[in-house]
Amino acid sequence: MLLNRQLRLKTRPEGLVRREDFDLVEETTPEIAEGQTLVRVLYLSMDPTNRVWMTDKPQYMPPVAIGETMRGLGLGRVVASRSNHFAEGDLVQGLLGWQDYAVIDDKQAKQFAKLPSHPGVPLPTLLGACGFSGLTAYYGLTEIAPVQPGETLVVSAAAGSVGSIAGQIGKLKGARVVGIAGGADKCRYLTEELGFDAAVDYKAENWKQALAAATPDGVHVNFENVGGAVMRAVLGRMVNGGRVALCGLIANYNSNEKPSDDYSIIIVKRLTVRGFLAFDFPDSQRAASELVGWVRDGRIKAEETVAEGLPNAPVVLNRLFDGSHRGKLVLRVADDI
Amino acid sequence: MLLNRQLRLKTRPEGLVRREDFDLVEETTPEIAEGQTLVRVLYLSMDPTNRVWMTDKPQYMPPVAIGETMRGLGLGRVVASRSNHFAEGDLVQGLLGWQDYAVIDDKQAKQFAKLPSHPGVPLPTLLGACGFSGLTAYYGLTEIAPVQPGETLVVSAAAGSVGSIAGQIGKLKGARVVGIAGGADKCRYLTEELGFDAAVDYKAENWKQALAAATPDGVHVNFENVGGAVMRAVLGRMVNGGRVALCGLIANYNSNEKPSDDYSIIIVKRLTVRGFLAFDFPDSQRAASELVGWVRDGRIKAEETVAEGLPNAPVVLNRLFDGSHRGKLVLRVADDI
Repeated sequence: MLLNRQLRLKTRPEGLVRREDFDLVEETTPEIAEGQTLVRVLYLSMDPTNRVWMTDKPQYMPPVAIGETMRGLGLGRVVASRSNHFAEGDLVQGLLGWQDYAVIDDKQAKQFAKLPSHPGVPLPTLLGACGFSGLTAYYGLTEIAPVQPGETLVVSAAAGSVGSIAGQIGKLKGARVVGIAGGADKCRYLTEELGFDAAVDYKAENWKQALAAATPDGVHVNFENVGGAVMRAVLGRMVNGGRVALCGLIANYNSNEKPSDDYSIIIVKRLTVRGFLAFDFPDSQRAASELVGWVRDGRIKAEETVAEGLPNAPVVLNRLFDGSHRGKLVLRVADDI
Repeated sequence: MLLNRQLRLKTRPEGLVRREDFDLVEETTPEIAEGQTLVRVLYLSMDPTNRVWMTDKPQYMPPVAIGETMRGLGLGRVVASRSNHFAEGDLVQGLLGWQDYAVIDDKQAKQFAKLPSHPGVPLPTLLGACGFSGLTAYYGLTEIAPVQPGETLVVSAAAGSVGSIAGQIGKLKGARVVGIAGGADKCRYLTEELGFDAAVDYKAENWKQALAAATPDGVHVNFENVGGAVMRAVLGRMVNGGRVALCGLIANYNSNEKPSDDYSIIIVKRLTVRGFLAFDFPDSQRAASELVGWVRDGRIKAEETVAEGLPNAPVVLNRLFDGSHRGKLVLRVADDI
């Protein structure tokens, strides 16, 4: 009998997430029936969207209900199957949840992807640069706000999982790339390790002047992950007719305050602002393969911060908001089998 | 010697505009020099943008300076010319300003359009349905957020100069058109006279439920003139992937409060929000001709509210914000010569 630990939402967090906002429940993993698959969760992707799912704000999926196992993207290994969709040993990606074992019913099989093996690409990278984080960066700069050679691209949260890949894709496409990140270390990382043309430390005094100095020709494309004051400053630097790939607004996610944004800049600068979610795009295998290729040949550097232990998930998630990680933040739940 | 009255900005208005915010100055019209044209101002277009130009908020042109003659779009007749660009008797449209006579220097000649004569189309209509108001509606629904047959289009400030034309263009393009306006009279006007499929009175109780009932399939395109609570309600009804032609945010223009908008709905619904200004589009003659054709053959109904007297311009402008006009609001400065 396998034991399954589950983190179930107990109270909707205010501000940062606390362990006490979840119940850690231990149950016997049920026997799988015909048409079901049992998956051992190996890694969980720690994403800003997890924080949104804990709230009951309007969002693109229903909020996680109180008492429900926390929703989360993960990577797992099939340990038992009575399904035609998956075989024992398959690597599976999807909303496995914050638990040790997930049961996939055939009815939901389409929501889970069987990943090909990518020798030389570590599993956490399949959740990061070669997973939805990378795909988000990829679609944002190819489909939503395609960036052209010679244009200036500004990426916020640029040392994060999506931003770090977006900036590198911008460089591959011939853009001048400026990253915004918190702290001198991250800024050095962007310019010295990832090849960004400039980096702006939003925690420094006069960061707005630094942004202006780094974007002498204005900003043509903004890949936006943050919102709030950072986004307002970038929009203020945009050229007329500029494009915004609106990926995330992490500045708002921990707050119950009403955002005080202003749409008027969109008219003043004749901007095109497009919101998007990577999983709306069909044929992600092709895009993922391109990302795998770029990672393998070193044109894109993938970095992950790996935390340990399912029970820590609620507090590990906070690291997305305190800036204490770099690249993709993942949680290791179990060793691969 | 011709006397020229000018309304010069004295203080930046707070809230509604007061007569005392302007100085009414009377001067002799200067002799024109070689390369200059003298234009008698006949009609002034009363536009929300006038109100914005009185503020020092960020905007698409410099604010009008204190002491400067108020900037304003107008229609005038050339009364004297020492220029190759214009001849006596020409009808001219451009930023003639809140005054009786404007002197156009050849260096600025390109900023003024010589209008062809359109028999049967009254001059105020050339500032309204066949002028920039009509062009704004036209570009919004053809270039910025093209609306497709069978889609639902929601237009705010729908009884106004731009909205009334946008809704009628939506009908010509085969859309289901829902207008939002203030008061039962205006709503009746939209459905009974302009052919809108439904109208929602935002001053009525339960108007949000009425909007929901009028958009059972959601909203595919929003032609937005208002912002604030009206826009938030419409965005809440949009389908995933919906498009917003962001034309105006009149709800904000009289207010010094910070707007409390929220960009997150743009991600949640994967919207494309595009700001635009009609005068960015080249070749407006072609579009204007199409509008003239539609007005002449009755497919688009043009309506104007004509107020009288240059000195009244500041207070007439307020009618844009108190809802006491219908269609295009213009000010008659002088009879045509």
